[in-house]
Amino acid sequence: MTVRRLDNNPLITPADVKPTRSDVEVYCTINPGAAWHDGEALLLVRVGERPIPQPGAVAAIVYDADADRTDIRRFKLDEPGVEALDNRTFLYKGHKLLTSLSHLRIARSRDLLHWTIDPAPAIAPSTVWEAYGCEDGRITALDDRYVVTYTAVGPLGVNVMLAETRDFVTFDKRGIVMVTHNKDVAVFPERVGGRYVCRHRPFKSNFNDACIWTAFSPDLVHWGDHSVLRRPTPGTWEAGRVGAGAPPIHTDAGWLEIYHAADADGRYGLGAMLTDLEHPERVIAASSRPIFEPAADYELAGVYSECVFSNGVLARDDGSLIIFYGAADTVTAAATTTVADMLAACRA
Amino acid sequence: MTVRRLDNNPLITPADVKPTRSDVEVYCTINPGAAWHDGEALLLVRVGERPIPQPGAVAAIVYDADADRTDIRRFKLDEPGVEALDNRTFLYKGHKLLTSLSHLRIARSRDLLHWTIDPAPAIAPSTVWEAYGCEDGRITALDDRYVVTYTAVGPLGVNVMLAETRDFVTFDKRGIVMVTHNKDVAVFPERVGGRYVCRHRPFKSNFNDACIWTAFSPDLVHWGDHSVLRRPTPGTWEAGRVGAGAPPIHTDAGWLEIYHAADADGRYGLGAMLTDLEHPERVIAASSRPIFEPAADYELAGVYSECVFSNGVLARDDGSLIIFYGAADTVTAAATTTVADMLAACRA
Repeated sequence: MTVRRLDNNPLITPADVKPTRSDVEVYCTINPGAAWHDGEALLLVRVGERPIPQPGAVAAIVYDADADRTDIRRFKLDEPGVEALDNRTFLYKGHKLLTSLSHLRIARSRDLLHWTIDPAPAIAPSTVWEAYGCEDGRITALDDRYVVTYTAVGPLGVNVMLAETRDFVTFDKRGIVMVTHNKDVAVFPERVGGRYVCRHRPFKSNFNDACIWTAFSPDLVHWGDHSVLRRPTPGTWEAGRVGAGAPPIHTDAGWLEIYHAADADGRYGLGAMLTDLEHPERVIAASSRPIFEPAADYELAGVYSECVFSNGVLARDDGSLIIFYGAADTVTAAATTTVADMLAACRA
Repeated sequence: MTVRRLDNNPLITPADVKPTRSDVEVYCTINPGAAWHDGEALLLVRVGERPIPQPGAVAAIVYDADADRTDIRRFKLDEPGVEALDNRTFLYKGHKLLTSLSHLRIARSRDLLHWTIDPAPAIAPSTVWEAYGCEDGRITALDDRYVVTYTAVGPLGVNVMLAETRDFVTFDKRGIVMVTHNKDVAVFPERVGGRYVCRHRPFKSNFNDACIWTAFSPDLVHWGDHSVLRRPTPGTWEAGRVGAGAPPIHTDAGWLEIYHAADADGRYGLGAMLTDLEHPERVIAASSRPIFEPAADYELAGVYSECVFSNGVLARDDGSLIIFYGAADTVTAAATTTVADMLAACRA
């Protein structure tokens, strides 16, 4: 089993992206959804922007749906009610705010070496659901269009929004498909038994672990028939949490899925899993060890260190796969492998 | 506006119910769903049972789906990993367990004075979803059957299960309709615009408040088109949380809904709300003050003091309403009012 990093990693870094306003800086360019479109590899990169830091203060940048405006809110660290949590979040009067606001930005390439990044967002906050950002888009080519699912964070929680596009120019936001707190929704590229299928990931609590779930839908709007596909395994590299990655890939052996997991210390890696073509709520086989782990400098240190997280994989006709991933919650990188290697890993 | 307690309150107490095994005691008989069936008022009472307490110890009673057996697990309070939280929950090695296991039991009456309680549960844990209990059932008479929604608590989280019955003898569990953490699912008694409708209540977090949501379904299995109907109002009796009560009642003026709320200190009361017949995701009017608050002894002190919580309301042809409710998380009681009074309260 071989997964090889591209020589030109990282592919996209914060320095490559023009901020949307002059008083913010690009904090991260991560977790791209991926699709083939018009002969190009197209990524929908999560671009996190944050107010330029000031000493002794924290700041949030929040979309105000009523005013259709993005506001910067600064708080002194010694102000009552302000509690710094980590470099990504803080509390203000018990409410959680993010230090950055994410949107989804398109990057394109014909050779995987040279990337052109759009000057403006493709999907940005435009509703109260998204007041704290649009994160981690997954793209599924489905029938005659593309379906994009992404995490909509805001004062109504961490919900999952579904949007559709045919051209990656106009996006039709179709509403919330998974209710707070949920993320990691990956829609399958085909109907199974007449219904659409997705993976999703309700949040961990002191009742339940962070598991990968399956749901079905007649129309992409209404979802149900929920079940749990995979739970964390105590004492292993996936003890802390598991979550779906990119949309599953149809192979003769089953649905091939490259998912993410974190161990008890929060170190993220990728695993591979094979699920039943006709019963995607059933696992056939799964890799016993990670197929990919943080090792490169840009994976080991950053906004969130020791992290590789993939939600975009592209397949080529020759059986090769390109795994795009966010590294250390800071940059976008990629690695190549093959379907055959991944199937072998599932069965090892 | 008048809401009058029945003279024979509380209607059902733990002493009235036979436990399912000899080594447990009935801890609470609360939060009944309600329906008219075969000329009787029928309640689906949440019966919580707990292992008979021992000094210096806590105990959980858990349904084991693999063995199809209910096990008592006792822990010494000074054992490492054991952390008592309140009289209803404790932590063991970071996992939350309940001190009681709930099932749903039928109580029947022709006169609201004399109640006959079935000797055995109607809906009891039979799946891993329900390992920690079946709680707070709501009954909706819909087409030619009854739909029951209830909270299924277990190691997969706090999910909402939907079951159907025609006779209150056989119940067909149809799976999870709202994913963890969610509760307070009330299904409307009619389709609106061709679709089924429900209220639901994702849990509060440090991102979001505990709000009443609306969702739609073509078939009661798949749910979507989610929106937020009502949020807590800071500084009021409903500052802490709001959640749906019984299934809404069709009136000429709109859907009449008696919902629950808690203030910042966790004191529960009931409010009334009127929503649009054709657009049940829109509020027309709501009571500015509670229509019912804890005042009687059995509401002021118990397993959870200062609490009235209703998820079952019956309407009579004369325009009167019977509000069944759990009091102090301990007993079942009822109060009467009228549709006219509730509509007036919404508009006051």
